[in-house]
Amino acid sequence: MSATPSHAERARTLLASRNEGALATLARDPAGHPYASHLIYALDGAAPIFLISRLAEHTQNLLRDPRASLLVVEAEREGEDSLARGRATLIGTCNPIDEDRDRLEALFCDRHPGARTYARFADFGFWRLSVSMVRYVGGFGRMSFIDAEAFARAEPDPLAPAAHGILVHMNDDHADACLAYARALAAIDGASEAVMIGVDRYGFDLRVTTSEGPRDARLAFPTPVSTPNDVRKTLVEMVRAARAKLA
Amino acid sequence: MSATPSHAERARTLLASRNEGALATLARDPAGHPYASHLIYALDGAAPIFLISRLAEHTQNLLRDPRASLLVVEAEREGEDSLARGRATLIGTCNPIDEDRDRLEALFCDRHPGARTYARFADFGFWRLSVSMVRYVGGFGRMSFIDAEAFARAEPDPLAPAAHGILVHMNDDHADACLAYARALAAIDGASEAVMIGVDRYGFDLRVTTSEGPRDARLAFPTPVSTPNDVRKTLVEMVRAARAKLA
Repeated sequence: MSATPSHAERARTLLASRNEGALATLARDPAGHPYASHLIYALDGAAPIFLISRLAEHTQNLLRDPRASLLVVEAEREGEDSLARGRATLIGTCNPIDEDRDRLEALFCDRHPGARTYARFADFGFWRLSVSMVRYVGGFGRMSFIDAEAFARAEPDPLAPAAHGILVHMNDDHADACLAYARALAAIDGASEAVMIGVDRYGFDLRVTTSEGPRDARLAFPTPVSTPNDVRKTLVEMVRAARAKLA
Repeated sequence: MSATPSHAERARTLLASRNEGALATLARDPAGHPYASHLIYALDGAAPIFLISRLAEHTQNLLRDPRASLLVVEAEREGEDSLARGRATLIGTCNPIDEDRDRLEALFCDRHPGARTYARFADFGFWRLSVSMVRYVGGFGRMSFIDAEAFARAEPDPLAPAAHGILVHMNDDHADACLAYARALAAIDGASEAVMIGVDRYGFDLRVTTSEGPRDARLAFPTPVSTPNDVRKTLVEMVRAARAKLA
């Protein structure tokens, strides 16, 4: 049991949180030249699927050579360093899918309602990227290659869609609880303030103000959680334990 | 003299408005596989320059094969269709730059102040993408290849940084002027409302409400403008002409 998400889990969480990226293919002219294009995707399990026109440059490239990679980057946040954003490059081969059109269309249009208007056009079809390897960069200095099996096996963080709301709630309404976590559970006696800056299925991160400057701390949940309600119960238990220690 | 910006001008304007993109290179392993990565750029004239570490995957790829392309996409706007955003793929070769380090550093760090912290690290160096061709996609159905010379010659729209402010001002404070443009200069007699949805050096775009539904209209400035003050004067002259026609 890891106290922090694995890189495979971080990459799967990132893929699940976004729906657009950059596809690298090999151009026809000049032949073999790397070509980057913008496109939207949905996920069929761990595999990205695309609904693309036969007329598009990337599709023409793939018809000639199926090798491709898909780059997905965390959403832009005002004022944040571009290179601090997490990103993943999924490397593999991209081929048209012949079966299962109705299921793929439902799945794709659920993620991209605007695609309904062209999903049935004769020149549009579904393609799947079969991933053979993943390059994950979680910001400065946190990077690795992930093999395809670990990537397929990992699960996106079930808390990710709720994480922002949890942070806002904890920092706005429970700053005292955050400070108790920092003092009692992270053992930072001199903490004067603590802000929750991240939460995932395995635990949460605090940025703690001390007389020596800011410090970060990671606290693990006793067992992984999967719903916002589980988080709430666990955080209440943890603040009781923290206050008992400080009493 | 064109009444709307050329694709080369639109691509140059897009490049000037952004500072990050996706670089496609050719991987070392598996050899020749297209590889997409996230990076930041600055512009030296029409050429993107990068400050990258020798240790990064894309740099290792470029050291083996300089062929590359850079995809730049318009910023995300809440609620807007991802495929409606303009984008450009700059195709060329990317090589290290040996001369002019101080000038490039000043230029790059002006656009990316955070880069000052690592600009002098021994493993970081400047690279330039020499552009041989550009693929421009301005949204649904507006796309073309632009040759390198036309791209280099084109100038970014000098109004682009001010355009959003001009639209807000015109729509908030001069809705009557917009309606006069629509009725008198675009000759849409039945216009009941007109919203300015775009402005550039050559003119502006209106979305006009009529009893038969919305219509778009493009109105050219009598001569191209290059400053917000020129736009203001020109729009005042145009509303006088419009009102004289309607009187």
